[in-house]
Amino acid sequence: MSVGVRTAAARLGHPVPVVVLAPLADGGEGTLDALLAAWGAEPRRVKCHDAAGRARTARYGISHTAGSRAVRGVVEAAEANGLPLVADLPLDALTATSFGVGEIAVQLLDDGAEEILLCIGGSATTDGGTGVLAALGARFLDADGDPLPPGGGALAALATIDTTHLHERARDVRWRIAVDVDNPLCGPRGAAAVFGPQKGATPNDVAVLDRGLARLARVVAATTGTDMTNTPGAGAAGGLPAVLVPFLGAEILPGSALVADAVGLADALADADLVLTGEGSFDSQSLAGKVVQAVVENAPAGCAVVAIAGRVQLTAAEVQDAGLAAAFSLATGPMAIAELIDGAGVLLEDAAAQVYGVFSARRSTVIRR
Amino acid sequence: MSVGVRTAAARLGHPVPVVVLAPLADGGEGTLDALLAAWGAEPRRVKCHDAAGRARTARYGISHTAGSRAVRGVVEAAEANGLPLVADLPLDALTATSFGVGEIAVQLLDDGAEEILLCIGGSATTDGGTGVLAALGARFLDADGDPLPPGGGALAALATIDTTHLHERARDVRWRIAVDVDNPLCGPRGAAAVFGPQKGATPNDVAVLDRGLARLARVVAATTGTDMTNTPGAGAAGGLPAVLVPFLGAEILPGSALVADAVGLADALADADLVLTGEGSFDSQSLAGKVVQAVVENAPAGCAVVAIAGRVQLTAAEVQDAGLAAAFSLATGPMAIAELIDGAGVLLEDAAAQVYGVFSARRSTVIRR
Repeated sequence: MSVGVRTAAARLGHPVPVVVLAPLADGGEGTLDALLAAWGAEPRRVKCHDAAGRARTARYGISHTAGSRAVRGVVEAAEANGLPLVADLPLDALTATSFGVGEIAVQLLDDGAEEILLCIGGSATTDGGTGVLAALGARFLDADGDPLPPGGGALAALATIDTTHLHERARDVRWRIAVDVDNPLCGPRGAAAVFGPQKGATPNDVAVLDRGLARLARVVAATTGTDMTNTPGAGAAGGLPAVLVPFLGAEILPGSALVADAVGLADALADADLVLTGEGSFDSQSLAGKVVQAVVENAPAGCAVVAIAGRVQLTAAEVQDAGLAAAFSLATGPMAIAELIDGAGVLLEDAAAQVYGVFSARRSTVIRR
Repeated sequence: MSVGVRTAAARLGHPVPVVVLAPLADGGEGTLDALLAAWGAEPRRVKCHDAAGRARTARYGISHTAGSRAVRGVVEAAEANGLPLVADLPLDALTATSFGVGEIAVQLLDDGAEEILLCIGGSATTDGGTGVLAALGARFLDADGDPLPPGGGALAALATIDTTHLHERARDVRWRIAVDVDNPLCGPRGAAAVFGPQKGATPNDVAVLDRGLARLARVVAATTGTDMTNTPGAGAAGGLPAVLVPFLGAEILPGSALVADAVGLADALADADLVLTGEGSFDSQSLAGKVVQAVVENAPAGCAVVAIAGRVQLTAAEVQDAGLAAAFSLATGPMAIAELIDGAGVLLEDAAAQVYGVFSARRSTVIRR
C-alpha cells in the first residue's frame, strides 16, 4: 500500500509522506514473521520434534537485548506441532504431542528470554499442553507413578503432575499466549469436539480426548488450585493453555493485541495521520480481537484509520461507530472472488492511492470540530 | 448520496454539512428532469406528433423568467421522436419524422423562450432534422416545387428549401444542441449507417437514407453556404443538426457541458469542498464529454471531486491526473453486476458515507501545499 500512497502523493504534488510499515498478525500464521520484522531480527532455529515425534528444525524469534524492554521471544507453535507438518501421515489424534513446542520454549529460556509469546494456531495436537510442560521438565504420572505416554489419549489415566524438575527459569519469565478462539477446554464446544476432527480424531477419539482433558483439568485444579474447565480460550490449540496458565502463570490474550504490543504499534502510530489496514473479509469479527481492532485501539486521537479489504461486510455506520474513518473493498466493479485474489496486490496499491487522494484533498479549514 | 453524507457527519459529531444536490445529465435521457430540477420548474406539456405521425402530448421545460438570464427552454427530443414511443409499430425508417420535435420548439418560441436547449438522444428518425425545420415553417420541395413527404426516405428528391415562412422568432433565439456522439452526417460512420439499423432500417433503407442525407447536405450548402458533410456530431439523432446549424445558427455542444451550464453548476459548486459524482461505468469516456468531466471543470480550485461508480475502469493515477481526488466502486466485495444494480441505492449512500469519513478525517495541519 505504501507504493500507492507515495506515488499518489507525488502525482498530487504533495510533500513525500513518511510511510511506516508495521506488519501485524493476529497470533496465527505469519505472526513470527511479523514480530521478526518489527524487531529487525533474523529467525533462529532449534531442533525439536513434530506432533508425531519426528525430529525437525523449527524457526523461532528473539528480540534484541538492547534497550530497557524485556528480551522477548516468540514461539510459533505450528513450527513444531503444526498440522501441515504431519500432513504426510495418517494422523493419530490420541498420541499427537505438543512436546516440540516446549522444546522451542526451552531454547528461549536458555537464550535468556524474559518474556515468551506463544502463538498457538494451526496445531495438530489435543494434549492439553502436557507435551509443552513435559518438555519444560514436568512429569505426568498415572496412579502407579509411571509416566504417561505422549498425547491426549493417555490423559484419562492421569493421577499426578510432578513439576519438581521444571526448567529453573520456567516460572521466571512472563508467558503470554495469543489465542483467537474462546472455546473452553472440554464439552461440546471444547478442544476435542470442535477441533479434534480436523486433527484426525474419529468420533471415538473425540470422546477419549474429551474425557482425558476433563481429567487433566481436575488434576490441574487439585494440584494448583486453578480450575481451567470454564476458562474461555483454554480449548485453543488442543487445550494448550490448560497447563500453561495454572503452572506458569501464562496470560491468555487476543493475538492481535499481543502482537500489537510486541511490535510497539502504539509508538509506531504516535505521529500518524492516516493508517491503512485491512484483512480479507472485514466484518464484525474484525472488530473483536482481530488486527483491525488492534490498529484502531493503538491509533492516536485524530488519526484516520481506513480499512481496505477484499470484502466489506459492515456499513459505513458500523465502520465509523467502531472508530474507523471508512472501509473500502478492493473491488473496482462487478468481480469474481478469484479476480480479487489474483489482482489483490495491484488493487491494494490502487485502493490506497484512491484513499490517499480523498484524505489529502480536504482543505485545512473546512470542518471545525 | 446526501443521506449518506449527512448521517455520517452526524455520527462523527461534525457540524451539519451543507449538501447541495445538482442533478446533472449528459444530454440524453433524464436531461429534461435534471434541468427542471435545477430551475425549480414543473414540466409543461404540448400536443405534438411522434415519429410515426401519431398525436401525443410531450413534456418540455422552460425556466422562470425572473432574473437577468435569458429565458431558457429545453426540448427532450425523444418526448416526440423517441424510439420507445413507436416501439409498438413495425417502424418505417424511411418515413419516420422529427416534426414533433419542431412542434415542441414552436411552443417554446410562443412561450417566449430566448434560448432553446435541444437534447436529441434516443431518436427514431433519420430525416436530417427536416421535420423539425418543417414544423418551424420551412418547406422542403422537389424539383417540381412540390413538398416532400415526411422522413429521410424522400430526401433524395430534395431540390430546394424554402424558409420564407419560418417562425418569426426562430432566428432570434439561441439554439444549442446537446450531442454525445461525433458521427458525421453521411457515409460509413454516418447517421444512416451507424444508427439506422436500430431504428428499423433495412440495408436497402440505410442506402436510401444515406443518399437522402447527402442530398440534403448539398442543398443546405447551396442554400446557406454551410456544408455540414464533415461536421462532427452532425450525424446525431438522424442528422438533426444538419439543418438546425445552417438555418438557425444552432451550436453543437457536448451534452454534459451544456447541462452544466444550464443548471448553473459552477455557481452551485462555488463554495463546495467536496463533490460526489459518478456514473455507471467510470472510464476514459467519462473524462471526454460526460458528466464527470463537466463536474471537474466546474468545481472550484481546492474542491475535492470523488466519483462513485458501479465499475471504475481507471487507475488512481488516471483518476487523479484527470483532476479528481479519487474514484470508488459501489462494490463491497466480489459481487455480480445484478447485485450492484439491485443494491445501487443503498450501496451509493454507503459509499458516500465512507468517502465522507475519509475526507473529513484529516487533521487540518497535516499536509501543507
